[in-house]
Order: sequence, then C-alpha cells, then structure tokens
Amino acid sequence: MIRTTSDIRNAVLRQKQDVAALFDALSAGSRVGDGITRDCYGPGEEFAHQLIAAHAAAMGLETRRDHAANLFMTLAGRNRTAPCLMTGSHLDSVANGGNFDGAAGVIAGLVASNSLQHLGLEPHCDITTVAIRAEESVWFQVSYIGSRSAFGVLPTGALEARRVDTGRSLADHMAECGASVEAVRRGDASLNAKSIKAFVELHIEQSPQLIEAGLPVAIGTGVPGNFRYPAVKVLGEYAHVGLARRFRRDAVVAASELALGLDDIWRLSDTAGRPMAFTIGRFHTDPREHALTKVAGELTLSLDVRAYSAAHLAELESQLFDLAKAIASKRGVRFVFGERASAEVAPSDPQLVGKLTECAGALGIATMPLASPASHDTATFTVAGVPSAMLFVRNANGSHNPGEAMEIDDFLDGACVLTAWLVGEAARASS
Amino acid sequence: MIRTTSDIRNAVLRQKQDVAALFDALSAGSRVGDGITRDCYGPGEEFAHQLIAAHAAAMGLETRRDHAANLFMTLAGRNRTAPCLMTGSHLDSVANGGNFDGAAGVIAGLVASNSLQHLGLEPHCDITTVAIRAEESVWFQVSYIGSRSAFGVLPTGALEARRVDTGRSLADHMAECGASVEAVRRGDASLNAKSIKAFVELHIEQSPQLIEAGLPVAIGTGVPGNFRYPAVKVLGEYAHVGLARRFRRDAVVAASELALGLDDIWRLSDTAGRPMAFTIGRFHTDPREHALTKVAGELTLSLDVRAYSAAHLAELESQLFDLAKAIASKRGVRFVFGERASAEVAPSDPQLVGKLTECAGALGIATMPLASPASHDTATFTVAGVPSAMLFVRNANGSHNPGEAMEIDDFLDGACVLTAWLVGEAARASS
Repeated sequence: MIRTTSDIRNAVLRQKQDVAALFDALSAGSRVGDGITRDCYGPGEEFAHQLIAAHAAAMGLETRRDHAANLFMTLAGRNRTAPCLMTGSHLDSVANGGNFDGAAGVIAGLVASNSLQHLGLEPHCDITTVAIRAEESVWFQVSYIGSRSAFGVLPTGALEARRVDTGRSLADHMAECGASVEAVRRGDASLNAKSIKAFVELHIEQSPQLIEAGLPVAIGTGVPGNFRYPAVKVLGEYAHVGLARRFRRDAVVAASELALGLDDIWRLSDTAGRPMAFTIGRFHTDPREHALTKVAGELTLSLDVRAYSAAHLAELESQLFDLAKAIASKRGVRFVFGERASAEVAPSDPQLVGKLTECAGALGIATMPLASPASHDTATFTVAGVPSAMLFVRNANGSHNPGEAMEIDDFLDGACVLTAWLVGEAARASS
Repeated sequence: MIRTTSDIRNAVLRQKQDVAALFDALSAGSRVGDGITRDCYGPGEEFAHQLIAAHAAAMGLETRRDHAANLFMTLAGRNRTAPCLMTGSHLDSVANGGNFDGAAGVIAGLVASNSLQHLGLEPHCDITTVAIRAEESVWFQVSYIGSRSAFGVLPTGALEARRVDTGRSLADHMAECGASVEAVRRGDASLNAKSIKAFVELHIEQSPQLIEAGLPVAIGTGVPGNFRYPAVKVLGEYAHVGLARRFRRDAVVAASELALGLDDIWRLSDTAGRPMAFTIGRFHTDPREHALTKVAGELTLSLDVRAYSAAHLAELESQLFDLAKAIASKRGVRFVFGERASAEVAPSDPQLVGKLTECAGALGIATMPLASPASHDTATFTVAGVPSAMLFVRNANGSHNPGEAMEIDDFLDGACVLTAWLVGEAARASS
C-alpha cells in the first residue's frame, strides 16, 4: 500500500492552517514580555505539555507520561510489541526564547501522525511522538534531563541541582509536575534501545546556514561531542601601571591570546572541512580587583569545544593544551583548567540519513547534509544505541531569542520528509 | 663655599641608622595585616603626616600645613621671598601596599635638609620638603588631590567624590584632617609656579628596570600623559552555541583581538625606542548573561594608554581607533568607547635633568635616564609651569604591594644626588 509522494505532500500541506494555529496557541500561553518562556519543570513547560497532550488526544493518539513526566503520543501499530518508530523533540525553552526551538519537532511528529491517519495507513509498529522534558541546560545547568531520565541514565546528583531562578531543586520541580522522583533516582527506564527501531528529531536550525544555502531543510550528520571547562583560571600577577611590558604577567593579554588562538584553530578547521566550534560564554577579570591603572593578575573563562569525532576532539584538546603552554611560557602566566566535563559524539545513523535524503529527493525537496554544533536530545538516543538522525528546518535569526523566524512552509517541507520516511518504514514493515 | 662630593656623601650616609629607624616607625604605625595602609585623608595618612611633621620640627625645620592639609617643611634661606627649591612626594599609600611608595621621597627631602644643616650651609633661598596628600587615585578615583589643591586646580566636583571603602565624600574626609574645604572649593593656592624655582621628586621605581640594569638610581625623563576610556563596550550579538563561526559576532573574540593588537603596538613601540604603556584593568562579560553555551554579545573593558609626548599619544589613539575599526568590520561588532579622560604629558625639565645627571656623575653614582609609565605629583608641578624632574630608586618587587623592596643603600644614593643638587643650587645662588 505505497502512497505517492504527491499523496504525502497533500496529506501534510492540508494541515497548514491547523499547524499555524497550534504554534500560535503555544506561543500565546507561554509568552512573557517579548519572548517565550517555557521553564523546565515549571508552569511554562507544563502548559505546553498539557496543550500538546490535549491536541494529541483529540487526534485519537494514545497519550501517556513516564516517570519523568515525558509525554508519549502514539499512533498504534498492528504489532504493539514490535520496536516502534519514534520522533519528537522537547517543549521547554530558555527564558525569553523563541516559539520554535524544540516545539517544532513535537508538532512535526503530530503532523506526520495525522498525515498517516489521513492516508489511511495502519502502520506495522507503533509510531510515537515524544515531547521530552527539560532539554535546555540553562535552567538546572544539567543537560538532557528528560531524555536521560527516560533511558534511566540521569546521574543521581542531578536531582539536587538548583534551578538558577527559583533556587529550588530539580527533584522538587519534577515532583511538582507529577514525576516520580524516586523512580528517576532508581534509574527506572521508560525507553530502551531494543524498543525503538529508529528515532528522528526535527529541529529548527540555530545558524543561518540554510538561509545562506537557500534550502528549506537539512539532514543532520550528527550531534557533536564536546569537552568543557566551566572555569579556566588564567593566573598572572597584579601589578602597577608603571610596570614595563617585558616584566608584566598580564592575565587579560594572555587570555586574549588563548581566545584568538582558538579562533584561529577553528578557522583552519573550517577551511579543512572539519566542522567544530568553541564558545567562551564567560570571560572576566575579578571585579574586586578592578582599577583603571592595575595590570590584571587573574581572569576566569568558560570553554566549550565541540566536534564530530572523538579523534578530532582529542586533537583539539591537545591543541588547546599546547596553545596554553606556549602562552604560559611567553607571557609568564599559568592556566589552571579546573573541572572538566565531556559528552560523547553522537553521529547520525548513516542508513537513516540515506533514507531521509532519499525521501526528500523523491518529494522534490532540496536538502544538504548539515553539521550543527548545538546539543540535542537525539544524542541521548544515539548514545543509548538507537539509530537516530535529525532534520533541520531553515530559520533566520538563530534560536534562544524571541526573533526565531521559521517559515511555516519550510516547516511543512521538513514534516513532509519525516512523514515520507514514516510512510516508507510502515509500508516496509507491513509489506 | 663649595663642598666636595665626599663631604656630601658623608653628610648623607651618616644618617643611615636614623633613616632606617624613621622608615620603621612609619611602617609600624601604618601596618594593617601583611601590608601598609595609609588611607587618603584618613587615619593611616594622618598618622604619617604627624610622624613626619614631628621629625621635621625636631630637626629645626619650619613646618606648616596648607588649606588642603599638605605639609611643608622648610629649611629657611637667607632670602625668604626668593623662589624656593622644593622636593618631596606623598605619604599616602594604596590599601595593603608597601612602605616606600611616596614616603621615600618625603624622607629623602628631610635627609637632604639635614645634610645641608650638617654641612653648615645657609642656602640663598628656602629649601622646602613637601609631604603631599592623597596621591593614590584608588581611594577617591581622583588623581593628584593634594598637589592639585595646593595649586588651586582641583576640579570642584572632586570634593563630592566618595571614598571607595567608607562611601563618605572627599570634602568630609578633608575636613576631618583639618583641611579647609571652602578654600579648596574656592581654588585658593598655597603654591604657584613663580614661587618655586624647581621641584625634584624622589620615588621608588615601580618596575624592575633598574634591577635589570644593575643601577641604584635613574633620572626620570618625565611623567607620561595618558588617555583613558574607563568603560569601552564591545557589542556583538548573543547567540546559541550552534551558530557557525562565520555568522558569529563574538564580543569575547573581538575584545581579545583589541587587547592583543594593543600589545603588539606596544611591542613595536618599545622596539622603536618610544616608551609607552597600555593597561586593561577590567575586561569582562556580563555576569547576568553567563552560560557555557552562549556566545557572548557584550564585553566591557577599561583602557589606560600612556606615552611621553602629545604627538605619540595622538598617534596611539589614532592607531587604537584604526584597530577597533578593522576588528569591527572583520568581526561584525561595534566598539562604543564612552567617556574619555586624559592627562597632559609632563616632561622633565632638560636643564634640571642635566644637573641631576651631572651631580650623580660627580658622586660616582651610575644612573640611567628612565621613562617610568606611572603617574606622580611631579606632573602637577610640571603642568603648572615649575621646572621639575624625578629621581627613581631601584626596587625589586614593584609597588602597591607589601613586597616593595628598596635597599636603604640605594635610597641613600638617591638622597646623595638630591643633596648634591640642592648644595649646588644653594652655592650658585649664594656665590
């Protein structure tokens, strides 16, 4: 029971008004000032979960919440015990963010499910759209809270993390949204690799690479791994403005040389076609020591470095240390890197990437492969062993800000690719 | 009645024990923790003024305080109305500073006066040692409070400046030390250029250039002028870690490029034998926006640039703007320089430098000319039109810290040069 690409396209595009209305309802209920705030395990996120659950239930999907209050919305297949096909994303946002980061992937799953219903397809296996909790790490300074809880791999210490605004613990916030903190603490799992045949997450692009390329949709090549040093100290020596250059051990100049050195490593890596990113979110002298005429003896910076292979990450960390060593020797300073965190590289499943690319081609939707250096819940699925991939939708103004600008037509192109893949898988399984 | 250099040397060196004891008494009365704190127009500075005034009175010098509580200690000359020869420095220190920055120059004046007395010289004109108030700008964020008040040129707004620790106004603090705030406000002057034939300030060196050169004493070539931007804003755009390099407008990377560019300008200027200095005392992202995975959209920095000629300063400011413009264009950021302050270059009087160099040579004390980029009250005298110069004494560990390490023998070498100059002037005038 193969559907033509034209059937698929029509099944998706007919939902255009409904989709726009759903995005608007989501925005209206989580608008704070100029932007969108759907706070993790707080009223903003909870509103979105209830709105989406009600919408899914009205569509006739089975809805359930797991122990971490993640929401699963299932179009039942003929074989309820066979590994399911899963799609979705998160519903939380940063404070004063935009309406599409996260939510687009959840709504895309509902659009695809509705399209399958409209096409009269009874899939072989369950097709589940998941609305994941607490993806944005700004709230609790912890990554992938919802998806890692679903797989039973959230570090237990994370439950004691305090939300940056309320000062209350993740455990408290979870309990308030109906989650079972004890089950999370025990490491209970609502998901495992064997129960999921494949996972695809649609997400807005957070960079204007698709704008630049003039394409509506990209196929993600993977979620980068990273290493992080949240508080690198550059230690020189405070000194009087009268100290001549050759005697200075200036922390500002040394730290600046590190930042520019990393920028140059990135430039060369880009030129060599090896995507990466580094980000210095904080970079500051000590306010207690600030004086116009005092050479700075200390600077603190945070460092996040990401790339798409373990080998590349190791190479970059080694370049970082070489750079710091050279600067330390040249400028008479010390670098104390301090605490280190890291995340594994989560490459997209090549077969799945092939299928998504093929579906887009058949639909006449031009795509490109895209290395997007952001973090996504997809990484949790990949690391757990689920074949995973991502679809990125063109977006003009970056994400995490009120200006996120995804065109609904581009979104529907992405939803078409997702639907075509699900149709193909369902047909394959039922053939 | 010419004295031999040997007479002069002996007249100074015989005071070695007394000088060491006076420095010790000064230290004992102003020690707080590990360091020295002689707070401007506060108990620390006041203690030093009373100790030094008592010492001068015991020597038989005339002591008086002016309307700003500066202390003048005079060895009377035959002609009381002729322009005087003046020496001295300040008695205040930074918080947790050292014992020698400032005080050495005042004690050197007393050593020279005592030497003249011992040599039986009755100078033609008054020889006055001044202990200036409030030279350290860290307390009130105002430069040269005591010396500018003496010349009647303290900006009136300065009286409302709050001391950083007490939060109380300069006017309050001055009044507490017996100054006449109304006279300062009116711009009364206790000094003017016509009443001073020449001014020489002895000061510890704040850089280890004399240590490096193996010399005890240097002759200052002048106090640099400066331009200052206390709060330069580097404005880029906050962005998600997912933003590719070519789209980023990263304030950290742009500001780093400015810091390194200035460092390179300094390096080249040094190589060309054109002394200068730049200092970035604060350099910081906005703590409210700190996140590991957010590209920094704003950075604030302070900038102090100094050099020894108005032309060089103008050239440096133009280089700064060119650099900022190039970075702005390359990195998609804006530089908002904000408030600007500046101070004139105060070159040493060439004739006076010649005489001091000659005196040192005759005494067998090897010296070098020195451009020291720090600020000194001498600049106020120079700008007012008094022929002025400085003597720097070797010091190992910089200044403004408890580790200041001036050897008493080096200090006495400096005092010998000062004494020889005063003897020469007195002889010249009386011959």
